[in-house]
Amino acid sequence: MGKSVTFYDLQVSTGATISPFVWATKFAVRHKGLELDIVEGGFTGIMDRTGGKTERLPAIVDEGKWVLDSWGIVEYLDETYPDAPPLIPHESVATMLKALDAWFWGAAVGPWMHCYCADYRDVCFERDKDYVTRSRALMLGGPLEDIQAGREDRLPAISAALEPLRLALRSSDFLGGNAPNYADYRIIGSFLWLASLAQTPALAADDPLRPWYKRVCALYGGLGEHPGLFPIFGLEQREGDPDLFVREAGKGGIFKRNTGPASTSAETKMIGEPT
Amino acid sequence: MGKSVTFYDLQVSTGATISPFVWATKFAVRHKGLELDIVEGGFTGIMDRTGGKTERLPAIVDEGKWVLDSWGIVEYLDETYPDAPPLIPHESVATMLKALDAWFWGAAVGPWMHCYCADYRDVCFERDKDYVTRSRALMLGGPLEDIQAGREDRLPAISAALEPLRLALRSSDFLGGNAPNYADYRIIGSFLWLASLAQTPALAADDPLRPWYKRVCALYGGLGEHPGLFPIFGLEQREGDPDLFVREAGKGGIFKRNTGPASTSAETKMIGEPT
Repeated sequence: MGKSVTFYDLQVSTGATISPFVWATKFAVRHKGLELDIVEGGFTGIMDRTGGKTERLPAIVDEGKWVLDSWGIVEYLDETYPDAPPLIPHESVATMLKALDAWFWGAAVGPWMHCYCADYRDVCFERDKDYVTRSRALMLGGPLEDIQAGREDRLPAISAALEPLRLALRSSDFLGGNAPNYADYRIIGSFLWLASLAQTPALAADDPLRPWYKRVCALYGGLGEHPGLFPIFGLEQREGDPDLFVREAGKGGIFKRNTGPASTSAETKMIGEPT
Repeated sequence: MGKSVTFYDLQVSTGATISPFVWATKFAVRHKGLELDIVEGGFTGIMDRTGGKTERLPAIVDEGKWVLDSWGIVEYLDETYPDAPPLIPHESVATMLKALDAWFWGAAVGPWMHCYCADYRDVCFERDKDYVTRSRALMLGGPLEDIQAGREDRLPAISAALEPLRLALRSSDFLGGNAPNYADYRIIGSFLWLASLAQTPALAADDPLRPWYKRVCALYGGLGEHPGLFPIFGLEQREGDPDLFVREAGKGGIFKRNTGPASTSAETKMIGEPT
């Protein structure tokens, strides 16, 4: 066992982590070769558990030093452990990840929250349910059952909207390239948030994102393979719904490489000769 | 004057470049300290101009070597000129840029094309108009005037959808961080595509993206300030339309840093106490 940091978790009744930020931070700590000394707990009692240090998680304590906030912890880890592989290998990665994360939040996490908010409440510890019901109803603007209702009609379009991520991972094992970095951990955190609570799958069984998901979850001794997680792959394609993902991806369009006239002739035939 | 590469341009009647890929590649060549030896021209006659080498642009010739495709040229430039600042400083930047570019294409370029397709045709060289009218009507599924009609009701939502880019650039001068890289050039290319043809602005005059746009356009002696370009900032906020951008950005939510209970108390007050 290497060196450990005290890690304040945010869990549901299965023992799995729920918060996307806490998930991302768990991977970030392990990426640096550090072990997690977990302080268990759910949504309520965070101020008590942390001695008044924070209302929100993640939080870590490293050699007596409290570090808060998912981005704050990442910056601390890269500064404090420069000999371990960087979480953010270039400042451009941080900037672009903020854009990508904001896109993913708007395209997937927000809409999924509207599809799974009653599941979210149901999977919490009993002692957390009052707070979660009340706060999430305020956030979402209505009773959780009403907000969640009809999700089967909304899930296909959310899956379809994830094509930019599929495209990037078509030519790369990780968002980090050949090896994972914080971009992978940040985005997998939101998928694992979903897996911590989803009582019905959100994505097709053959979604091209699945190999990346499995690859990242398997890191650090299967950090993302907690037995309390639910399957998120297995949504069936229904007739009349949007395609859950683009099957003919890579066959043409702006993401095809131009290697000369032979590579563009099919498109040219379709749209007409430019000469 | 430093070393030049032969650069096949794709222009409209103002002399400005239209293609987002050609724009991105112009910046990429200049980033490497190389000069552009421009071969002018529009949509028709590309095969003639390039001696049958390609139907699509960009294309460059460097010391007699033909290099095609916007990504192909970027990879060539970084391999061939390793002493100049990298266009792609880490493989993670390429992977994430593919996701970001695909998002931007779906959120902005595609919808804008539906708002500006008649402008697009009108600004072309006379000799290109038949081809452009025919090919774009096939791509878009109808006469260009019909597709473009009603754009004033669609532009506000497109502007609103660009929030992930605004968020990333709120804490960074460039997508590249403190200095620009190919991520900036790739995305500015699509904005300059719009500027090459837009007869009415697409974004608010006070859009937070504007300082970044001006910063990138000013690079390399004002490479993005061609006199033939049209203003893209100046869309008026109409009552009942979505906000053109988020004015209270940074005040809270998941993108606010947690620095302890004082930083989260306002949100806690809104959603209720977790204890």
